[in-house]
Amino acid sequence: MAKLWDKGYTLDKTVEQFTVGEDCTLDAALVKWDCLGSVAHAAMLERIGILQAEELDLLKGRLREIIERHEKGEFVIRVEDEDVHTAVENDLCSNLGDVGKKLHTARSRNDQVILDLRLYMRDRLLSVAEAACDMCSTLLDFAEKHRAVPIVGRTHYQRAMPSSVGLWAAAFAESLLDDLELLRAAYRVTDQCPLGSAASYGVNLNIDRQLVADLLGFARVQNNVLYVNNSRGKVEAMVLSTLSQIMLDLSKLSNDVILWSMPEFGYFRLPDELCPGSSLMPQKRNPGPLELARARAACVVADLVRVLEIIRPLISGYHRDFQETKRPLMNGLETTHSTLRVCALVLSKMEVDEKRCIASFTPEVFATDRVLELVKKGVPFREAYRQVAATLEETAMEDPVENISKKTHLGAAGNLGLDLARERLAAEREWSNKARNAWTPAIERLMA
Amino acid sequence: MAKLWDKGYTLDKTVEQFTVGEDCTLDAALVKWDCLGSVAHAAMLERIGILQAEELDLLKGRLREIIERHEKGEFVIRVEDEDVHTAVENDLCSNLGDVGKKLHTARSRNDQVILDLRLYMRDRLLSVAEAACDMCSTLLDFAEKHRAVPIVGRTHYQRAMPSSVGLWAAAFAESLLDDLELLRAAYRVTDQCPLGSAASYGVNLNIDRQLVADLLGFARVQNNVLYVNNSRGKVEAMVLSTLSQIMLDLSKLSNDVILWSMPEFGYFRLPDELCPGSSLMPQKRNPGPLELARARAACVVADLVRVLEIIRPLISGYHRDFQETKRPLMNGLETTHSTLRVCALVLSKMEVDEKRCIASFTPEVFATDRVLELVKKGVPFREAYRQVAATLEETAMEDPVENISKKTHLGAAGNLGLDLARERLAAEREWSNKARNAWTPAIERLMA
Amino acid sequence: MAKLWDKGYTLDKTVEQFTVGEDCTLDAALVKWDCLGSVAHAAMLERIGILQAEELDLLKGRLREIIERHEKGEFVIRVEDEDVHTAVENDLCSNLGDVGKKLHTARSRNDQVILDLRLYMRDRLLSVAEAACDMCSTLLDFAEKHRAVPIVGRTHYQRAMPSSVGLWAAAFAESLLDDLELLRAAYRVTDQCPLGSAASYGVNLNIDRQLVADLLGFARVQNNVLYVNNSRGKVEAMVLSTLSQIMLDLSKLSNDVILWSMPEFGYFRLPDELCPGSSLMPQKRNPGPLELARARAACVVADLVRVLEIIRPLISGYHRDFQETKRPLMNGLETTHSTLRVCALVLSKMEVDEKRCIASFTPEVFATDRVLELVKKGVPFREAYRQVAATLEETAMEDPVENISKKTHLGAAGNLGLDLARERLAAEREWSNKARNAWTPAIERLMA
Amino acid sequence: MAKLWDKGYTLDKTVEQFTVGEDCTLDAALVKWDCLGSVAHAAMLERIGILQAEELDLLKGRLREIIERHEKGEFVIRVEDEDVHTAVENDLCSNLGDVGKKLHTARSRNDQVILDLRLYMRDRLLSVAEAACDMCSTLLDFAEKHRAVPIVGRTHYQRAMPSSVGLWAAAFAESLLDDLELLRAAYRVTDQCPLGSAASYGVNLNIDRQLVADLLGFARVQNNVLYVNNSRGKVEAMVLSTLSQIMLDLSKLSNDVILWSMPEFGYFRLPDELCPGSSLMPQKRNPGPLELARARAACVVADLVRVLEIIRPLISGYHRDFQETKRPLMNGLETTHSTLRVCALVLSKMEVDEKRCIASFTPEVFATDRVLELVKKGVPFREAYRQVAATLEETAMEDPVENISKKTHLGAAGNLGLDLARERLAAEREWSNKARNAWTPAIERLMA
Repeated sequence: MAKLWDKGYTLDKTVEQFTVGEDCTLDAALVKWDCLGSVAHAAMLERIGILQAEELDLLKGRLREIIERHEKGEFVIRVEDEDVHTAVENDLCSNLGDVGKKLHTARSRNDQVILDLRLYMRDRLLSVAEAACDMCSTLLDFAEKHRAVPIVGRTHYQRAMPSSVGLWAAAFAESLLDDLELLRAAYRVTDQCPLGSAASYGVNLNIDRQLVADLLGFARVQNNVLYVNNSRGKVEAMVLSTLSQIMLDLSKLSNDVILWSMPEFGYFRLPDELCPGSSLMPQKRNPGPLELARARAACVVADLVRVLEIIRPLISGYHRDFQETKRPLMNGLETTHSTLRVCALVLSKMEVDEKRCIASFTPEVFATDRVLELVKKGVPFREAYRQVAATLEETAMEDPVENISKKTHLGAAGNLGLDLARERLAAEREWSNKARNAWTPAIERLMA
Repeated sequence: MAKLWDKGYTLDKTVEQFTVGEDCTLDAALVKWDCLGSVAHAAMLERIGILQAEELDLLKGRLREIIERHEKGEFVIRVEDEDVHTAVENDLCSNLGDVGKKLHTARSRNDQVILDLRLYMRDRLLSVAEAACDMCSTLLDFAEKHRAVPIVGRTHYQRAMPSSVGLWAAAFAESLLDDLELLRAAYRVTDQCPLGSAASYGVNLNIDRQLVADLLGFARVQNNVLYVNNSRGKVEAMVLSTLSQIMLDLSKLSNDVILWSMPEFGYFRLPDELCPGSSLMPQKRNPGPLELARARAACVVADLVRVLEIIRPLISGYHRDFQETKRPLMNGLETTHSTLRVCALVLSKMEVDEKRCIASFTPEVFATDRVLELVKKGVPFREAYRQVAATLEETAMEDPVENISKKTHLGAAGNLGLDLARERLAAEREWSNKARNAWTPAIERLMA
Repeated sequence: MAKLWDKGYTLDKTVEQFTVGEDCTLDAALVKWDCLGSVAHAAMLERIGILQAEELDLLKGRLREIIERHEKGEFVIRVEDEDVHTAVENDLCSNLGDVGKKLHTARSRNDQVILDLRLYMRDRLLSVAEAACDMCSTLLDFAEKHRAVPIVGRTHYQRAMPSSVGLWAAAFAESLLDDLELLRAAYRVTDQCPLGSAASYGVNLNIDRQLVADLLGFARVQNNVLYVNNSRGKVEAMVLSTLSQIMLDLSKLSNDVILWSMPEFGYFRLPDELCPGSSLMPQKRNPGPLELARARAACVVADLVRVLEIIRPLISGYHRDFQETKRPLMNGLETTHSTLRVCALVLSKMEVDEKRCIASFTPEVFATDRVLELVKKGVPFREAYRQVAATLEETAMEDPVENISKKTHLGAAGNLGLDLARERLAAEREWSNKARNAWTPAIERLMA
Repeated sequence: MAKLWDKGYTLDKTVEQFTVGEDCTLDAALVKWDCLGSVAHAAMLERIGILQAEELDLLKGRLREIIERHEKGEFVIRVEDEDVHTAVENDLCSNLGDVGKKLHTARSRNDQVILDLRLYMRDRLLSVAEAACDMCSTLLDFAEKHRAVPIVGRTHYQRAMPSSVGLWAAAFAESLLDDLELLRAAYRVTDQCPLGSAASYGVNLNIDRQLVADLLGFARVQNNVLYVNNSRGKVEAMVLSTLSQIMLDLSKLSNDVILWSMPEFGYFRLPDELCPGSSLMPQKRNPGPLELARARAACVVADLVRVLEIIRPLISGYHRDFQETKRPLMNGLETTHSTLRVCALVLSKMEVDEKRCIASFTPEVFATDRVLELVKKGVPFREAYRQVAATLEETAMEDPVENISKKTHLGAAGNLGLDLARERLAAEREWSNKARNAWTPAIERLMA
């Protein structure tokens, strides 16, 4: 099929292959959103008199069909098509003739792809939020269940002070809750309707941008048409910043579990069905999913770097460079989502060996508690510290279970504040439900 | 002076130099915050009976003195001191004896530095927000002033469609406003009081963490004591993500101005006093500050990468690695602040040469408008596109001033929506004032 | 088919999907190399008595077949197979029975994949070297052809001093020649045979690692078996460092061409067939391939970051994390290769508009030459500088063609030293031919 | 003092502060090299008749003095000076009058700073090479000493197969030897004399670039004058790529030692004098230097990213952005050097606890050896694997010392090939000595 910009010359084949790059493949994730956006755009064109009501119906019908054919694997984007926008327009033109040729009025592929990605991000970012809430819930249940299991707290990998499995798991729950603060901000920036920017400079038609925004359930129009284009990659980087934070948590969690499930510690045990083996060594059961969670955190950070650096040196307006921000965005969203799911699965199946946790305690772990006992008796802290340091071998063993139960100030092992975390979690769930419900009905209406 | 952890052996000198690293220098920025934190901690220790009221007074007096001596350059942190915390404790112990030795009760240098950095970030992040608001205001004034000046809009560096200087400047204002969404989220995460985590595992004393938080004007206690330590670097990365976004905007702005003030374009003109010269070429006046804004955006991105990658592979709890997150955080905050200030200065002094802006227009810039004129007459878009493409040389020149005034849909050059942006800006200013006022009175009371 | 490590339990489906990740797809590039490596390994096993001569023949035959079937698209790696190694072993076992089951003796998938990647890198890195030589040659021809075309030399985007198109193009040729220094070092590190590391700790069999290295044409055995595994990702990062350097050159070249082919400059002109258009604006002809070259340079840098950061925090020995270094390596190699090819194509078709180059000169460009003329007459430099600065408007216009012809010191526009560059290029070509011929005959013999 | 480019207007103070940035501080490392470069440049100017012999003597004398005053801390670069080049020229002009004013003939600060950095890199890169050789030597001695100490080899953090302390240490030695391949390539690119590029476009004087190169002991002139400027940052990135590789090794080594010196393993023991303590916990002795080695590896990677990304988007010629590549280069070189020294110190003092190493073995570690025993008896590998997997609990314990001594193929624990590594090390030492001797005598002659 012809390119949209066909005007009598043929693009060099090598250049075509090079410029299209991965778009044909990656755009598969955008077919649905591209068609939705086109329906909204068509509805607006009809409202302002560019399309007739019947023409809108024809377009809507065909676009619905494309979505369905795509779901069945029957709608394919070819290299010659360049991208999803062309593939769809070509389909419409060859099936609907002039009606198809009208659809691109007042828009550019640039703002189309921004719209598609905005719709895609809006949806996937909420899925990530939902998976993060689920993970948070799993962590809080785990913390609740194992709140009384003592574990040696470490700093610098060395034995430090008594801790608990509950404290450990709840720490990650609170971390994810803070990530969701950032996610909501990224979502608010995402939830602006870009369409109408055209080539970054608007058009000499009286388009109704607010209508398109309403039809697609956006919170607002992204106002300045040049900013729309300037925000390409930028919003993606905001999203990836948030995803990086979540992946950092999962990476730390994975590092902890990998370490504490080494046979020498044995605090945690992963069931066989989560552990791939070795092709050479018959005894191996490896924490593969957790190692990949750790590595993929680095991948999402690299995705963020890629996007930030692609866009940093650009002048205002659209550039082809933006194309290369698609893969890192998609990879970031899909990876974070699947890693949250897998980590929740791992946590829900992971066993805690309380005996080994307790067996790991040695008297030195209680040295600091001993210092503070002396402080309570009136010895100045720094002196008490030196006394205990000088007679370390005399530090007595304590019962770790009792010890942690007596740490009752805010946020300590004996006072985890899980209710507080559950409240925050409930608020996050409420937010994400509300956010999703702010646009799903609009989209259903639009496609009805 | 002795190290806080002195227990009878001496650290190898090479290792001491290596481990202390830049702490002595960088910690200068933390002296004030460290002393403030110590006063709040001491007040809490007094409340729970570890310190007497007179002891608290003595400590408070001396800590106030240290702040003053530091401001005069009389309080210095030496390599043997390792860091600000030790330098302060050593001062207190040698001047107040046992009273000084009591202060470290129930806390660790780890949570002290987290507190110091949190106080520092809270303050500097608001300064960045204020500078961003000022820059936004400068941009909106600039947009207002030059709203009717047409400029050739570009995509791919090529002439695209008519644009305006107002559209250009307002795009950056809206971009900064979106950044402030992210900044507020990062601020909310920052605005949690970490003290009481001790070595990440709390203490066996009935410390009152809420009191410390209140005394320092924090919005809330950061609950889970292990999460406090796990959030080291993480909060910094959130802050740096925000700063990166701001720097991206300033980088793009700089790229635009550097390009459009080239003699071949001459749309913008920078006054001499902003342009360093060349040691060899007598005619040169270089856009040095803007080139550095662009380069320093890359530096802040690299700072973000540094922090993310230092913390990603760590297991839970404190590690010495965290030390290396200090410089990138400080660099990020100071750089973003100064770059905002310099860019606002540049913009406020930059002249627009309307004549050259207009002279830059050629007929092809109006080709798309011509296409849409045909569409209005009923020609299907794709056909109109091909007609105009086939007869490009016939495209007529238009009056660019009139042209942009007629683009009146939301967010176009003839309808910039500056009022909307000013409203958002006012809300941001209100937020940052409110945020600052949430803690400055508390701190004044504390030090009174 | 069964997993190689099957021992009676089934991996969770979600975990399987998550852990296999992109291996099935990416490993398609390794099928040939995996089979080659297996033939060499089998030949060694036969030499030490683990396999019979007939068994070796059977294996060799079937492995040759797999390569052929793969080329025809008939050999596919499925998710259940996990990776190419399993897919191949499963094929051999189901077709050759016990003979297939013997092949994995004394090796692990870990060292298999290292070998496959080493063979792949060795081949692709040379292809990059060859493409870099071709690009270098294109640049030198271009420099030769346009050596007398003057162009305004810039610093800080501002007019600086007279330059030439020849100087510009030859600068990139020398840059690539320096990159090849680095490439050769990376190649030398790549060109070590890893096989025999097994699970990083060798085996209790008398394997002949030197024989395998010889059969595959490697320069040497990578000796220490633990280092073999520790170098996974590390060698990839060396390769990506080299590729980043090449991409930096192409990015700069692209930036230059994009800028100087703007209509306001018009020094260069790209033919239509290299320039995709716009879907909205009929007049647009965009330098798409060059914009992508610039963006993809950022991608290769991000690939490097990804690999460095995946491997940095790992302890010695194999970890699943390494899997995530595959895509960035492959992307880096393929991207650099295609970008070199496309940039050479662009350069070979790009026209230089000498008239516009000359028209761009203004008197100020000659100010520094004027300063040095005064110096020749005995005025101290700094004084001459100030004299010319004070009377800038009096600076006379010169003939730029003559001006550049008179800059004849080493490396200046009038003395480009193209012969020197051509000599270096010839040496690089000789090296890459020699490097390729060091192993291609060995591999042909092996598969004969 | 006046700026070199003073021509009657004053730079805005905020802009001056912003543009000078850290140059005043960082340039302290360049004073010596700047003066050396100036002496060589002056000698060349004398040879071509711009300076008289007496003038050269005066300049040489004063420049020698500046070096001496700088060493005593008496030569300081102020913000108003902007950089070392101006500070030096100002000193010469105010002391030598017209003679001082002649020195800048035919050069620019741009090529001066490139020269200074090239001289600095050449020196520091060799220091890194020397420290790497020393570290390599320490590793080989360590490997030799503990070659018979068995240790449980791991993959995925899990027990895998028998290994040895010797194998572990020697793996790092071989890794560093491969890094030196890359270092030599980076050195070759560094070792080109840039002077004479002036503002990137050469000069209209008959300067003798080869003479300057010879006087400073460079291997060759960097020919193309535009490439000289285009290589700013690029050569730095090559150097930082090499440094990253070395830091990766040290990071891995640190991770290993931190882990294996945990009390639960106790394979390694670090002496007290290398381990800072905790301000709160009396029992702590933390592996601080190793944690910092790990974190600083991330810093050097971030330095590399910073440089690559500052330079990637620039067009040809000098830009102020380059200034921001100075700190990462210097940080990278100094950090790598000090980390190599500290790690060598740690290794030389670290004790190996053979008993605990041996006690760590369990029967499963021998499972794979058992499989291969069955293979020797004729059981096909995959069947042997399944047999052993099915009867894992029957796997017999072996003597680990004997076991590793019997792994005698190339590169295994019983055949480390230390001699081979020592030979390579000797060659590296020879190279670095030769490289240093290629320029130190020239510089001594120059300053005599």
